[in-house]
Amino acid sequence: MPDAYVIGAGQTAFGAFPERSYRDLFREAYEHALDSVDRPPDTDEVDEAVVGSLGVGGRQLGLSGPAVTEHVGLHNVPCARIENACAAGGSAVRRAVQAIESGMADLALAGGYEVMTDMSDDVTKYWLGVSGETEWERLTGTTFSGVYAQMASAYLAEYDATVEDFGRVAVKNHENGAKNPKAHLDFTCTLEDAVEAPAVAAPLNLYHCCPTSDGAAVALLASGDVVDEYTDERVRVAGVGAASGRVGLADRESYTAIPASETAAETAYERAGVGPEDLSFAEVHDCFAIAELLAYEDLGFCDRGEAPRLLREGVTDPDGDLPVNTSGGLKSKGHPIGATGTGQVVEAFDQMTGRAGDRQLDDTRYGLIHNVGGSGGATVVHVFENEEGGR
Amino acid sequence: MPDAYVIGAGQTAFGAFPERSYRDLFREAYEHALDSVDRPPDTDEVDEAVVGSLGVGGRQLGLSGPAVTEHVGLHNVPCARIENACAAGGSAVRRAVQAIESGMADLALAGGYEVMTDMSDDVTKYWLGVSGETEWERLTGTTFSGVYAQMASAYLAEYDATVEDFGRVAVKNHENGAKNPKAHLDFTCTLEDAVEAPAVAAPLNLYHCCPTSDGAAVALLASGDVVDEYTDERVRVAGVGAASGRVGLADRESYTAIPASETAAETAYERAGVGPEDLSFAEVHDCFAIAELLAYEDLGFCDRGEAPRLLREGVTDPDGDLPVNTSGGLKSKGHPIGATGTGQVVEAFDQMTGRAGDRQLDDTRYGLIHNVGGSGGATVVHVFENEEGGR
Repeated sequence: MPDAYVIGAGQTAFGAFPERSYRDLFREAYEHALDSVDRPPDTDEVDEAVVGSLGVGGRQLGLSGPAVTEHVGLHNVPCARIENACAAGGSAVRRAVQAIESGMADLALAGGYEVMTDMSDDVTKYWLGVSGETEWERLTGTTFSGVYAQMASAYLAEYDATVEDFGRVAVKNHENGAKNPKAHLDFTCTLEDAVEAPAVAAPLNLYHCCPTSDGAAVALLASGDVVDEYTDERVRVAGVGAASGRVGLADRESYTAIPASETAAETAYERAGVGPEDLSFAEVHDCFAIAELLAYEDLGFCDRGEAPRLLREGVTDPDGDLPVNTSGGLKSKGHPIGATGTGQVVEAFDQMTGRAGDRQLDDTRYGLIHNVGGSGGATVVHVFENEEGGR
Repeated sequence: MPDAYVIGAGQTAFGAFPERSYRDLFREAYEHALDSVDRPPDTDEVDEAVVGSLGVGGRQLGLSGPAVTEHVGLHNVPCARIENACAAGGSAVRRAVQAIESGMADLALAGGYEVMTDMSDDVTKYWLGVSGETEWERLTGTTFSGVYAQMASAYLAEYDATVEDFGRVAVKNHENGAKNPKAHLDFTCTLEDAVEAPAVAAPLNLYHCCPTSDGAAVALLASGDVVDEYTDERVRVAGVGAASGRVGLADRESYTAIPASETAAETAYERAGVGPEDLSFAEVHDCFAIAELLAYEDLGFCDRGEAPRLLREGVTDPDGDLPVNTSGGLKSKGHPIGATGTGQVVEAFDQMTGRAGDRQLDDTRYGLIHNVGGSGGATVVHVFENEEGGR
């Protein structure tokens, strides 16, 4: 099989742009992605397109994949929308990798978009809730924050963790996001802010929850057979893993682990031939603060119950051993559902090609991105390799 | 790349089952698919699942892919829902093929489902309309039948065709569907019925439109590396092609051709190393009678304007040179949107493994299936090969 490489990636700012259309956002992301390629492909060189979106708000309800690709002039390209709740973007990237590794495509686009802020303030309650299980979560009135709050409560009960540890996720990710010109919430916060904020779904408060955002992100991938035609700054897709899990939290054996993340990571590590100890940095799915703690453990960054220690010791700070969410993560950079997973590719690509500005890391040899759908019903993990080694 | 093979395929009856859930339908289809495999795989042998659905009616709005696979015990399997309007099922099959040909999966499930009849009678108007273009078709009040009616009018104006030719599609497909125990509308009709039925969107009448159906269909695919473990009756995926097209009809140069179908077919033929002249049979996307005529021409069965002649001369009858829609097609077998494309695989598999009962063809060496999203915004074509040759 040919290897797949990320040859470019770009995104809109994530934020509240209720006046902009999903197509307009997608076009901007596509143009940024093209601009990031040394020798950008022509539209007729794109062999495949996969577009992630939950379809929040219901604009083009059917065929919104082809609707956005035709808007940027990609006529006749095989295209479909993929929906995997908040993991739609990561799933789109994985499908693009499969298209390339199957030999069906030399050049593939993986994109994602969502417009969420042109609806009522209850968008989180109603639209994010659709990513929860329907009968026992959504229709009984459980909000999506409420699902993760149950996971947070269980974690506090099970391990030596405090609400301050949730706050540490917010402090770190806002500190990172404040350096990211594309971040939705580009301000810093103190641990006091992040502990004393008003409750959303106890024990989770406002600073423990990501915002609802608008935005789009696009990654361009090429086969190893043609990558040299487009760029000298390439990022190899070293390993990909995905898994599903029980959609409803109540159906799972544990509330303090996401088995789909564990399986997806194991697969991705195995394919990449590396382990968590080899990673230079990671972007993990921190839709709620508890999710970042679980990610550390599910992805093998530490043992069960050890995530708070990593935060307290600064291991996942930008100057720590394993920087996590240098982009600001979902917490600060924002979470326009379908665009989140492809947005993670943008951060990895920028870090690995020296474009991360004030957030630039020195060592970027191996980077991992981790995208979760719902509370763990679907997960996708990619491990990228910078073949030039660390900077 | 390893070849991909269909090792089994099964479906529920298509029909009106408003009392059944989407998961229940999916489970039945999955069980029929398992039953069709000589040595059915265990759940832990399935490496990948792709589920096509438009999500009509909005049941599990997010994560409905994992929601149906967990229901049949496929825990932890990478899974996502794919939406490409009425081509969701065909797109799911193509993604399963890519997963296998990329080496990521040895065994992949491609499924689809839709529940449409538990809503108001206006389901066609409101839910099928979402597969049309939003601003200039759906929001201006154009029904989906109305979109195809414009294509039908253009065809009548451009070529030597009559409304009787549309009726001939209905007569043939109902004749076939009446022999299919899984068909929704399992009755025959006369040419008089099919010409004098009440108008739906002139020139299309009731017999020129497929029904809205409930149902599910599942195909199981395996890599050539493992196919012998499961079955001796295998169907090789010889070629796959897909393309997108302008979502809105008004944006296209012609109303009497679907360029996405032409491109998808060219790709599938090229990969399979065969042409339309080599086909033994085909299942084409006859959501409306005009769509079957356009398919004959887009897929290269005849020149432009020649489709009526094929119908009049019986070329596409079961005893003709190229039988089309032996299953009954969307017209008679039914059209549960997300299940339609995978349902086409069921007919091809049944024909190629001698299970088609009263519909069984003698020659089944090469079969083509053709699945269209919207009025041509997305199209997928598969060419299957029965390596045992014709029966």
